[in-house]
Amino acid sequence: MRTLIKNGTIITAIDEFVGDVLIEGEKIVAVGTKLDAIADEIVDAKGKYVLPGGVDQHVHYSFEFKGERVRGFETSNAAVAGGTTTVVEFVNQEQGKGMADTIFDMDKKEVSNQAMADYSYHAVVCDPVDATFEEINDLPSKGISTVKLFMAYKGMPFHSDDEALYKALKSAKEAGVTVMVHCENADVIDLLQKKMISEGKTDPYYHAVSRPERVELEATQRVINLAAMVGAPVYIVHVTAESVMESIRSAKNEGLPVYGETCVQYLMLDEDDLAKPNFEGAKYVMSPALRTKSDQEALWQAVDNGWLNAISTDHCGFDWKSQKHMGVNDFTNIPNGAPGVENRLGILWTYGVNTGKLSKQRFVDLFATTPAKNMGLDHCKGHIGVGMDADIVIYDPNGSSVISNENSLHGVDYSTFEGYKQDGKVAKVFLRGKLVVDEGAFIGEKGDGKFIPGKPFALCFDDVKEKKELKRI
Amino acid sequence: MRTLIKNGTIITAIDEFVGDVLIEGEKIVAVGTKLDAIADEIVDAKGKYVLPGGVDQHVHYSFEFKGERVRGFETSNAAVAGGTTTVVEFVNQEQGKGMADTIFDMDKKEVSNQAMADYSYHAVVCDPVDATFEEINDLPSKGISTVKLFMAYKGMPFHSDDEALYKALKSAKEAGVTVMVHCENADVIDLLQKKMISEGKTDPYYHAVSRPERVELEATQRVINLAAMVGAPVYIVHVTAESVMESIRSAKNEGLPVYGETCVQYLMLDEDDLAKPNFEGAKYVMSPALRTKSDQEALWQAVDNGWLNAISTDHCGFDWKSQKHMGVNDFTNIPNGAPGVENRLGILWTYGVNTGKLSKQRFVDLFATTPAKNMGLDHCKGHIGVGMDADIVIYDPNGSSVISNENSLHGVDYSTFEGYKQDGKVAKVFLRGKLVVDEGAFIGEKGDGKFIPGKPFALCFDDVKEKKELKRI
Amino acid sequence: MRTLIKNGTIITAIDEFVGDVLIEGEKIVAVGTKLDAIADEIVDAKGKYVLPGGVDQHVHYSFEFKGERVRGFETSNAAVAGGTTTVVEFVNQEQGKGMADTIFDMDKKEVSNQAMADYSYHAVVCDPVDATFEEINDLPSKGISTVKLFMAYKGMPFHSDDEALYKALKSAKEAGVTVMVHCENADVIDLLQKKMISEGKTDPYYHAVSRPERVELEATQRVINLAAMVGAPVYIVHVTAESVMESIRSAKNEGLPVYGETCVQYLMLDEDDLAKPNFEGAKYVMSPALRTKSDQEALWQAVDNGWLNAISTDHCGFDWKSQKHMGVNDFTNIPNGAPGVENRLGILWTYGVNTGKLSKQRFVDLFATTPAKNMGLDHCKGHIGVGMDADIVIYDPNGSSVISNENSLHGVDYSTFEGYKQDGKVAKVFLRGKLVVDEGAFIGEKGDGKFIPGKPFALCFDDVKEKKELKRI
Amino acid sequence: MRTLIKNGTIITAIDEFVGDVLIEGEKIVAVGTKLDAIADEIVDAKGKYVLPGGVDQHVHYSFEFKGERVRGFETSNAAVAGGTTTVVEFVNQEQGKGMADTIFDMDKKEVSNQAMADYSYHAVVCDPVDATFEEINDLPSKGISTVKLFMAYKGMPFHSDDEALYKALKSAKEAGVTVMVHCENADVIDLLQKKMISEGKTDPYYHAVSRPERVELEATQRVINLAAMVGAPVYIVHVTAESVMESIRSAKNEGLPVYGETCVQYLMLDEDDLAKPNFEGAKYVMSPALRTKSDQEALWQAVDNGWLNAISTDHCGFDWKSQKHMGVNDFTNIPNGAPGVENRLGILWTYGVNTGKLSKQRFVDLFATTPAKNMGLDHCKGHIGVGMDADIVIYDPNGSSVISNENSLHGVDYSTFEGYKQDGKVAKVFLRGKLVVDEGAFIGEKGDGKFIPGKPFALCFDDVKEKKELKRI
Repeated sequence: MRTLIKNGTIITAIDEFVGDVLIEGEKIVAVGTKLDAIADEIVDAKGKYVLPGGVDQHVHYSFEFKGERVRGFETSNAAVAGGTTTVVEFVNQEQGKGMADTIFDMDKKEVSNQAMADYSYHAVVCDPVDATFEEINDLPSKGISTVKLFMAYKGMPFHSDDEALYKALKSAKEAGVTVMVHCENADVIDLLQKKMISEGKTDPYYHAVSRPERVELEATQRVINLAAMVGAPVYIVHVTAESVMESIRSAKNEGLPVYGETCVQYLMLDEDDLAKPNFEGAKYVMSPALRTKSDQEALWQAVDNGWLNAISTDHCGFDWKSQKHMGVNDFTNIPNGAPGVENRLGILWTYGVNTGKLSKQRFVDLFATTPAKNMGLDHCKGHIGVGMDADIVIYDPNGSSVISNENSLHGVDYSTFEGYKQDGKVAKVFLRGKLVVDEGAFIGEKGDGKFIPGKPFALCFDDVKEKKELKRI
Repeated sequence: MRTLIKNGTIITAIDEFVGDVLIEGEKIVAVGTKLDAIADEIVDAKGKYVLPGGVDQHVHYSFEFKGERVRGFETSNAAVAGGTTTVVEFVNQEQGKGMADTIFDMDKKEVSNQAMADYSYHAVVCDPVDATFEEINDLPSKGISTVKLFMAYKGMPFHSDDEALYKALKSAKEAGVTVMVHCENADVIDLLQKKMISEGKTDPYYHAVSRPERVELEATQRVINLAAMVGAPVYIVHVTAESVMESIRSAKNEGLPVYGETCVQYLMLDEDDLAKPNFEGAKYVMSPALRTKSDQEALWQAVDNGWLNAISTDHCGFDWKSQKHMGVNDFTNIPNGAPGVENRLGILWTYGVNTGKLSKQRFVDLFATTPAKNMGLDHCKGHIGVGMDADIVIYDPNGSSVISNENSLHGVDYSTFEGYKQDGKVAKVFLRGKLVVDEGAFIGEKGDGKFIPGKPFALCFDDVKEKKELKRI
Repeated sequence: MRTLIKNGTIITAIDEFVGDVLIEGEKIVAVGTKLDAIADEIVDAKGKYVLPGGVDQHVHYSFEFKGERVRGFETSNAAVAGGTTTVVEFVNQEQGKGMADTIFDMDKKEVSNQAMADYSYHAVVCDPVDATFEEINDLPSKGISTVKLFMAYKGMPFHSDDEALYKALKSAKEAGVTVMVHCENADVIDLLQKKMISEGKTDPYYHAVSRPERVELEATQRVINLAAMVGAPVYIVHVTAESVMESIRSAKNEGLPVYGETCVQYLMLDEDDLAKPNFEGAKYVMSPALRTKSDQEALWQAVDNGWLNAISTDHCGFDWKSQKHMGVNDFTNIPNGAPGVENRLGILWTYGVNTGKLSKQRFVDLFATTPAKNMGLDHCKGHIGVGMDADIVIYDPNGSSVISNENSLHGVDYSTFEGYKQDGKVAKVFLRGKLVVDEGAFIGEKGDGKFIPGKPFALCFDDVKEKKELKRI
Repeated sequence: MRTLIKNGTIITAIDEFVGDVLIEGEKIVAVGTKLDAIADEIVDAKGKYVLPGGVDQHVHYSFEFKGERVRGFETSNAAVAGGTTTVVEFVNQEQGKGMADTIFDMDKKEVSNQAMADYSYHAVVCDPVDATFEEINDLPSKGISTVKLFMAYKGMPFHSDDEALYKALKSAKEAGVTVMVHCENADVIDLLQKKMISEGKTDPYYHAVSRPERVELEATQRVINLAAMVGAPVYIVHVTAESVMESIRSAKNEGLPVYGETCVQYLMLDEDDLAKPNFEGAKYVMSPALRTKSDQEALWQAVDNGWLNAISTDHCGFDWKSQKHMGVNDFTNIPNGAPGVENRLGILWTYGVNTGKLSKQRFVDLFATTPAKNMGLDHCKGHIGVGMDADIVIYDPNGSSVISNENSLHGVDYSTFEGYKQDGKVAKVFLRGKLVVDEGAFIGEKGDGKFIPGKPFALCFDDVKEKKELKRI
């Protein structure tokens, strides 16, 4: 069966043209014009944009915070409805258990049968014993090519100290595994949290006060130095501030393989959101904390110039009423994180592309193409190209709506972007050739999503022959 | 007539896959697999790379230096045989004549009937009267979207002072015209040249001594400041040194729309070449002068990271015996410039791609895709994409040869890269669908090349709505 | 005759103590306590500060602008009354005449018989012929060890182009002469001035618009590059902006011998002063133009940290009514410059020392000690030390007054700092041991001031053995 | 009794002149010429330099490393013989005991009765309980105004983590206490040490391999960030590398009160010394490790420019045979540190002043004047000025000798600078007016040295009124 998406305006990271995409089975087999003759079925995309399905390299469908757990893959239809067809999930290693075992036990139990988007995994180091660092060498053979460490969260099982970071970087370098790091100084946050609470400053706003920009800057500089000592690449997740971005850019300018992403919320929201009354601020409690409007401008410039190379969501589906309220008397008990996977395309289109901050090409690059490369998923994801998975979004740029939790699928009782305007809408989505969104409505099924193995050496590994090569085929 | 280039490994600036390119007339109409059914003719590219035809944004087919003139478009088959299907020529304005008139009079007289590659034009400001700066506004309507000014060459007609630079930047900004600048401090060079000659230092090597890196650095910083005052983008041509590149990168980091290229020779050769005995050094007399091996490394890193966005040739076809020897007793009389348009692909493939310095994607970007964007030619050039001109190079990566002037078509009595190895070879070239190189031999005709209008607002013009948009239809 | 200034709080650039200064003739012969036994006369300084007489390395007592001339040395009592006992005057070379001849002819005619402060000279290159650059070698033997060039003022005799700058730096390096440069891009200012006037923007405020910060930044970077090529030190006069200061600091950090001063007005005033109604703005027309409050903060920080090493006045005594009004219909005709030599100590004490921006030691350093070193005058000036000239200010910190032109001696019809508060006052001044200010009143005579030769190699001349040595004795 | 040191060339941090210093009792009472009349006794210093006694702000007379203890104050005559009249000793807090109690118990037991140089104390935080951080507030009242923390030395009692650093900075800021930090990443060193040993790399050279420059750079950047969060000044001890110095300079340029010193050995020695055969390398085992010749150059430039403001010794008197040999089979057991207090003046004079790297003024500043300021000792130490302690060195610049342990007084069996030339020699030393070195020989007695209280707010404490004021009277 060959389906032709016809007459859409096709956008790639470097390209834009009116033409057709020919799908055969799960794959894109041709891009061109006048291909009707070899198509069995035609989908009209005239006047609409044809985009690659998004890749969100930073989501949480299994995260736990002080006993509270986020919504799982049973809500991954939200991603798809929002134009993201691939998500990469962080899986916290269980104590005393291998990272891969933790991941694939979970996969079997609650992911493979529920996922409605394709997915891949990051392994989060939680048990810093030698066996864990040795296991890093085996991860690529299982399709896991990234590990993550948290410098923040003193006292929690997923916190890592410098020793763990160094060991992980060392193993990862040999294995071609990318180390991703949550950069915040745990000691200082811990002290400031205690200080706030002891002074009766328990409101959500003090979350930001207890995690100032410098805690992120310090940790970022630290891990850059550790990675430089090892000679390993490193990927800094959820960069929030101009100074942090500049540290990454400077390292790059020195020739170090240091990379970073930001997230939609750091481009759109700021510390004032945390000050909203009636515990509304809790909705915006995430780490690192929201910063200033001036940082937003710097981050928009950074993603436009490639100083940061991806825009993720750090999606965390915690309920406001039943879960965030745990911290109603003590902000340190508010589960960290906010939902967003459903709104990435709409927000970036509306506030990035339509304001002139990003070209459509740059948007596609940040939304799909480079995240796929970062994750070693570019062998089949992130691009409308021949041989790629037929993950395609047909975006209708006409009309506009208002984002509202009522219309959301993410299974949480609030939306991070409630009330924000969205220009245009996701009209159709194909996941590996299967139509899973039609007329804006999700029509796929649980289990449609498939595990996609990430390939190693995705970033620039200096001593490695495969360096800088695309790894598709 | 539909021709299918089949089973090649197609490389774009972000992509690599085995597949087919379908050509109809002058255009690419599809890229895919299993397209035989809709093709009339099949060209087998199995085991070979299918690349976009190169765009060399910096060539001289009409340059004169102290009465000596370079080889003209009658030698543009050399470009094509070397995989470059589009060249952009600098035309020095005649005194008292409009820039467009100078260009199109020349076009009629000696280009349109001779060109074997497609071509576009830069207007070089030589007559800094008000009418010239006003004319900049009209250039885009004639398909000219770049002007160039020379800060070097004191006393020559094409030298510009700060007043001219400022005025050109001012007009250009309004018109969406890109200002390109040759950055060297003319006064200092003039003094140092006189000093050298007065001390009897007449050999070609003293060309380099009389144009130290700082003359280029100074002028680059100056024009960046002038452009910043105007709010105009600026494009720095033929960057030779790490310090100069860093000035450009710093300006970019400040948010200024400052861009630059380097040239093949600055990546490959160094000041030692100027010291070659028996006046061999004269072959390498070009401006700015060749620098050091350490600068070469910095420039390779710069093009890999996008700190410079194109690799050109600054091709200048001066004969060694009949022309360069003019300066045998005085290096200041050696015509400046060296040939290179024929070797750009071969050298960059061999010393860039095959050494791991550049990925194949990055190579294509620097060789074709971004130069086309810089020039406003990306509406039809620089990319293997649907709707683009069918300018295609089939590169056979097998075997290797030695570059020799004997086998060159550039019409000059020496090759800048004589004796350098070249891995692989250009097997076939299509120019807008016409096969013009076959089995490595040029088979096109004079007049095959066509003027391609450049579109304005190619770079980032801040206040302009069209900013950052691809301008292809 | 030995005079003891007793029980004052003596301030040097590194020191502060209650003690006595013993003067014999023109010199300081001891600093200590309990020296009464060897003194003939005692001056009580109890409760007062004993400071070295100020050195103002940047004054104009002979400057002409479009035919208008500043007040001359007959008003130099203002300097002394304000605590400045040494001034360094810029003398514009007459066309066709040697710099030293210009200076000493003027000295004989109108300085030596009028000066009430000690003085030294800068030679301003105005006739850029070879003889001028050769003469630089002879200047030190005549006690002239600085030359100045103006990059600004296109079309005026004292404007210098890059060729002149380079030649001056070259000669100066050999001779140990310090090159001082007024950094502004003349071409751009000229264009902007014409633009303003053609648009009817004739008010004083447009003076600032026509000389934006970038014209100063560009020229500063240019001369730093020129000096680096030559290997000569360079001194940037009247730095007004943070960006310019940063260029100087960066050059220093690279190891280049680049230095700079700022002036009192750039620390205190801003572009809003130029916007004062009723042509009041003309009082503040000086070049470079006044900048912003944020620049003021950066400059205070710069002088505190030594990134700029002196605070001068650029004193220019033009009358507002009879001279500044020349430009009432065209700001480009307003003579550039403003008076200030009388207020340097009072303003810096009040707004620097008393606000905590500068320590008293740092103040003395910027006001006297380092200016003397910069000028090669530290063999006898700038410091309360044994063997130094007995130039001493007794400053009474008690009480405060309001600066008013009425009480000024500078011979001009307005004060730049009219209405500003001054804490304390100059109670007594000794000039080489002679009491010339008493109870706040000037009691000296014309001719009291003496020419003080400046010694060469005052700054860091890299190849020179005398480098970094104090040159006293 | 009034003693006149007559006709010497007196050097201060800003001055140089031939003159006399008049001493009465323990104090300098006058500086001048022709003071014989009021003197009782005359010491001829003709042809010699008269320098302030040195202040070495970084010595160890009580340090223990794995059970081995350095030579104590019974060897402090070595300091005096080498021209250093004041030393500042680091005292490691005993577990469960207050810092001041630890210090003054030790003072009574083994310092006050033995010291032959004047001395002051740094308190080293070893017991990071709340009481310790609270005690910081009381230290200034006891004459202790600096605390030190070690980021290196994982597992040792004096190692501090980020929590301790932050708490110390917080208390110190309020109290006006300066925090000094030994910056090296303890985790990474620990891992690299284990790696080396496990690979059989036990020689002293691997000490350097296990402590690469980046461990110092990382920790320096970390503590700068921590100090910036607190708003406290911080002083980085023993800076060894260009990159580390640049981090400090950048912080300063940002407006942060960050300061640092280097030590004699980092200016003179390099990693090759660690590779000396027959366990000779152990003599140079100190932390941070010796670096490269290129770092030496950068550090000389840094001290000349004030980017680092003091040159100390980090004097550690461990015997080679009886103590360093502990680590003969395992470099991690070699006691860290080397002697040097005796050679600071001689080495800096010979290799700094006499090579033109430092002026004599700059030398005095780095050797005595600024260390005294850093320590809050400038109320009586570091300068030849009226009212200061009469700590005076008469340096005879004539002749030269070779440094040899034979002639050393430091009580250790080797000299770090064995075989190095020394130009000139310490002829006489006065300690608070008492002649303690005569004709090059130490003639003082145990107990001559006196505790000198350090005053708080020595560095720039932003919110504090006393900021930047000299605190003498």
